[in-house]
Amino acid sequence: MNEQNRTEISTLGEFGLIRRLTEDIKLVNKSSHYGVGDDCAVMGYPAGHEVLVTTDMLMEGVHFDLTYVPLKHLGYKAAMVNLSDIYAMNGTPRQLTVSLALSKRFCIEDMEDLYDGIRLACEQHGVDIVGGDTTSSLTGLAISITCIGEARKEDIVYRNGAKETNLICVTGDLGAAYMGLQLLEREKAVFKGQKEVQPDFAGKEYLLERQLKPEARRDIIRQLAEAGVKPTAMIDISDGLSSELIHICTQSHVGCRIYEEHLPIDYQTAVMAEELNMNVTTCALNGGEDYELLFTVPIADHEKVSKMEGVKLIGHITKEELGCGLITRDGQEFELKAQGWNPLKEENK
Amino acid sequence: MNEQNRTEISTLGEFGLIRRLTEDIKLVNKSSHYGVGDDCAVMGYPAGHEVLVTTDMLMEGVHFDLTYVPLKHLGYKAAMVNLSDIYAMNGTPRQLTVSLALSKRFCIEDMEDLYDGIRLACEQHGVDIVGGDTTSSLTGLAISITCIGEARKEDIVYRNGAKETNLICVTGDLGAAYMGLQLLEREKAVFKGQKEVQPDFAGKEYLLERQLKPEARRDIIRQLAEAGVKPTAMIDISDGLSSELIHICTQSHVGCRIYEEHLPIDYQTAVMAEELNMNVTTCALNGGEDYELLFTVPIADHEKVSKMEGVKLIGHITKEELGCGLITRDGQEFELKAQGWNPLKEENK
Repeated sequence: MNEQNRTEISTLGEFGLIRRLTEDIKLVNKSSHYGVGDDCAVMGYPAGHEVLVTTDMLMEGVHFDLTYVPLKHLGYKAAMVNLSDIYAMNGTPRQLTVSLALSKRFCIEDMEDLYDGIRLACEQHGVDIVGGDTTSSLTGLAISITCIGEARKEDIVYRNGAKETNLICVTGDLGAAYMGLQLLEREKAVFKGQKEVQPDFAGKEYLLERQLKPEARRDIIRQLAEAGVKPTAMIDISDGLSSELIHICTQSHVGCRIYEEHLPIDYQTAVMAEELNMNVTTCALNGGEDYELLFTVPIADHEKVSKMEGVKLIGHITKEELGCGLITRDGQEFELKAQGWNPLKEENK
Repeated sequence: MNEQNRTEISTLGEFGLIRRLTEDIKLVNKSSHYGVGDDCAVMGYPAGHEVLVTTDMLMEGVHFDLTYVPLKHLGYKAAMVNLSDIYAMNGTPRQLTVSLALSKRFCIEDMEDLYDGIRLACEQHGVDIVGGDTTSSLTGLAISITCIGEARKEDIVYRNGAKETNLICVTGDLGAAYMGLQLLEREKAVFKGQKEVQPDFAGKEYLLERQLKPEARRDIIRQLAEAGVKPTAMIDISDGLSSELIHICTQSHVGCRIYEEHLPIDYQTAVMAEELNMNVTTCALNGGEDYELLFTVPIADHEKVSKMEGVKLIGHITKEELGCGLITRDGQEFELKAQGWNPLKEENK
């Protein structure tokens, strides 16, 4: 927390804090008709456009640790993970509501830092903050963000449209955000109580960036539109590749085969996994928080997607009876399991 | 919490719990195109209809106390306060998203109780649950609900349209929910540690109902439409009449005069205030959680609103320079102050 310049929230109260955080917000979208300041936000979308809504809740101590996550980064990430869900439907994010519950530990400057991050993410993606709720909590910080987007009806991509022989594509690389988290946790443990010692992250900047500042893949959505490719199914990778691929296959009533050798993994991820004595393929499959897009396309689009920057073909869709499998480098086959991050399941505790 | 029949949430995990809570939800609205199960919910509204969005966050220990609030009632109320915000824009609520963060203290049966309450409120108002997020928290329960509604553009009523000479109307009666809270807090203090003794709420049932099971005033919105009355400004009373009236006046750049003798107060509220040695007018002005509607209408609608069941005329709008005032029974004038419930302000601690 900010200790130099600390103004207690009680000096402003709820309405004062909301005013302080939102007073200079300008609405940029034509669809944003009325923002903060009434019982509801009011939006209007063109005829034939569907409204997309997604919501995410982040709890201190479960989803983030403020001992190493700066509040501005937290705000940026909290917004970004919601934008990612809108892109995963092949839509365009337009509005955002921000609900915060905070304990007395936090001061006005802290909330300004958090909001700065949210606003930066919104500005970069042309999204308006149109409402929310600000209240207190007995312990810690809770953030609930809802994002509203739009898409033409015919453009929307669901999870349930994958067909046999479709190609499976993934963007960017996998496992780095998870390695970033491991790195931060390790340094936190090592340097606990030794304030003058600064952790050394040299050569691992990419892992930290992936964990602390994920980017929703609007660029991919645009590339797909420009290339005239409409995926048959799409999802964003928040809980790990395996888990998301199983979602697509279950909802589409198909199976799949992906190839270990084709999984996109950054050099820093591989080095870090080695250091931690972890299997890098496992990290890529189950790490989570990548916020990359996983999608399937008809085989006829092979050439188009092969040319797309930041897109990798990792396998193909099969009949449902064949299940979901990974083919290892040495040709063995393993069943994919949804072992991604799951805060409500006992095994992960 | 339910101790007889307790199934740990860890036996299901996040996805299993969501499935359990949402599997038999059927979408009833034409505008609900796709509900739970993808990255986003998908909605489609007719051309010329605006989309309304409101969101509320409730934190255990701040907004509710589970020692006397049953989880089903909590769910009902959490949904209802959001529906109330949509009605306060003169709109119709259509969809709801439910985000929950829960500690290990809660079991699956608890979450089913909570959801039962949310679903009951939704069923009564024809609202679809289309999404949400379910995750864990280190301590207590956090609930974040977002409601999406619709209204024809020309029907929407904002807070900023009140004009000089407009009549000020309020629905139902005021202060009862606050008295209900005082009653519950008193009984909690008295009977703490004496499990076999049951608190005696005889003759005070209405106060408890107003606190534990508020009803959003759809009936009033319908009456207004049938009578052909469109309010010039409207807001729902969540933080107390004074606070909400000041919102309308500030945003409309007007002043107001309301009359103590016209404030609608139930008999049980008056008796309870007497018992607690509190001024009943203060309770009506600042109590909060009434979830009644406060609105202004042109003087030409005087006859129409006078005939409406459950609507009371309490004063009129004045020039801005005159400020916001209450005229007491003995003809004195006091300035209204926003002393409503404000969890982030020091004075209320």
